[in-house]
Amino acid sequence: MKALQEKIHEVGRVLSADVLKVDSFLNHQIDPQLMKEVGEEFANRYANEVITKVLTIESSGIAPATFLGLTIGAPVVFARKKQSLTLTDNVYTSEVYSFTKQESNKISVSRDFLTADDNVIIIDDFLANGEAVKGLVDIVNQSGAHLVGVGIVIEKGFQQGGKLLRDQGLRIESLARIKSLENGKVEFFEDGEF
Amino acid sequence: MKALQEKIHEVGRVLSADVLKVDSFLNHQIDPQLMKEVGEEFANRYANEVITKVLTIESSGIAPATFLGLTIGAPVVFARKKQSLTLTDNVYTSEVYSFTKQESNKISVSRDFLTADDNVIIIDDFLANGEAVKGLVDIVNQSGAHLVGVGIVIEKGFQQGGKLLRDQGLRIESLARIKSLENGKVEFFEDGEF
Repeated sequence: MKALQEKIHEVGRVLSADVLKVDSFLNHQIDPQLMKEVGEEFANRYANEVITKVLTIESSGIAPATFLGLTIGAPVVFARKKQSLTLTDNVYTSEVYSFTKQESNKISVSRDFLTADDNVIIIDDFLANGEAVKGLVDIVNQSGAHLVGVGIVIEKGFQQGGKLLRDQGLRIESLARIKSLENGKVEFFEDGEF
Repeated sequence: MKALQEKIHEVGRVLSADVLKVDSFLNHQIDPQLMKEVGEEFANRYANEVITKVLTIESSGIAPATFLGLTIGAPVVFARKKQSLTLTDNVYTSEVYSFTKQESNKISVSRDFLTADDNVIIIDDFLANGEAVKGLVDIVNQSGAHLVGVGIVIEKGFQQGGKLLRDQGLRIESLARIKSLENGKVEFFEDGEF
């Protein structure tokens, strides 16, 4: 997605060969207009599918997931990283290890909002090692819902998550696929290049 | 806001005289169309003000804040409840006690995204005891920005937060103000009634 790649070139900061900081428009400050375009692009890529539910995880997945939900007319559910007191035992849970935060989180989704009748798309801001998506896939499997595919805003294509998930037969659509962050420079895969 | 009050009557669940569960459209599952209307209603209420930044807190404030930001053309910043490793020391912090989760959280906002030049509106999903808004106001004050006002999706008008904040001279716009949850029934304040 051109507008997204341009934004990353313009304001993304390469902190190391592994870390790209995009907190000026994606995961701390949000650019609403760009997130709207991101949501619409996910809708385009999955235009041939019937989707009844958009599943994401708090917090940075919420904005793009919500614009996708608005575009296709489907509700959005965000998995919680901590159980609140008003969420009762009626939940699916899974474990997600975060390399960024160096901790394991239990994530949960209420059984009220994901059932075997659903056709689900999973949305997240980043795909690196694939831990968050794996946890969300686990929850979709527990619910018996059909998983249509995954939409990622930025994939770090030089890490293993995308390959692992695609090898399982999952459809993954990443709007920006980073080939390398070497030498402080962001390089993208071209469309179709792997 | 009529559509919001109707939605609360339709799907909100009164768990006790203090607790209203609205996780089917606001804080676990999100109704994107309603959140769009909520964001637009905040924009209407503050149409006479110049706003350069929408400030909220993860996670349930993000959807309404993002639609407000889209409507008025302003970026959105969400305060984080935990510091991530890619957020460096360059942050404003404050303490927020959550009665729902029975724990105190340090919240933080990068100094890059809130400065003395900003005109800020604070958005949150719920106003009860006012702890989250107080923490966000503290952060706005630290930054030297001008605080235009606060927008709340659902105010529990029978709890003290709204009164405390209004007594400090803050403008608070709540789209649904609950008068009582007694006897399992949601009663709203009429517009202008306090």
